[in-house]
Amino acid sequence: MPEFMDVHTTMQGVTAQALTEAHDADLAIQDDEGVTFKQAWADPESGMVFCLSEGPSAEAVQRIHERAGHPADHIYPVPVQA
Amino acid sequence: MPEFMDVHTTMQGVTAQALTEAHDADLAIQDDEGVTFKQAWADPESGMVFCLSEGPSAEAVQRIHERAGHPADHIYPVPVQA
Repeated sequence: MPEFMDVHTTMQGVTAQALTEAHDADLAIQDDEGVTFKQAWADPESGMVFCLSEGPSAEAVQRIHERAGHPADHIYPVPVQA
Repeated sequence: MPEFMDVHTTMQGVTAQALTEAHDADLAIQDDEGVTFKQAWADPESGMVFCLSEGPSAEAVQRIHERAGHPADHIYPVPVQA
């Protein structure tokens, strides 16, 4: 299944609790689209959040993020890894 | 030790071999700055590469990337994770 790195750019001030709640909101509905969210990394100062997932398509990833209330600003397939 | 996500934005066409070689070039000298590069994810189409590391500072991460020939365009501390 393809992997994706999505980027949120406006989450300034995000706390550990808020990120966990956002991530849990994705996890709760991810099966509806066959997506597996793996990990999220946040920089509260810049507002950047990076979110690694596996799923059938970028659109499927975005549908989960949208329903969870935090659409991604960019979603990149990441087929090449090291 | 703080973790960082750095972003390269102009690696269009990057292959698995090229990414591995770039990553290995970081690994070979990372001890000089007390940095540990963990993983890299690339989208050859957009040219975006995301690189997760642990180290004493963003400057230390950048010094390794610069010496290895591929300075990052952005480096974000990612103290908040889920």
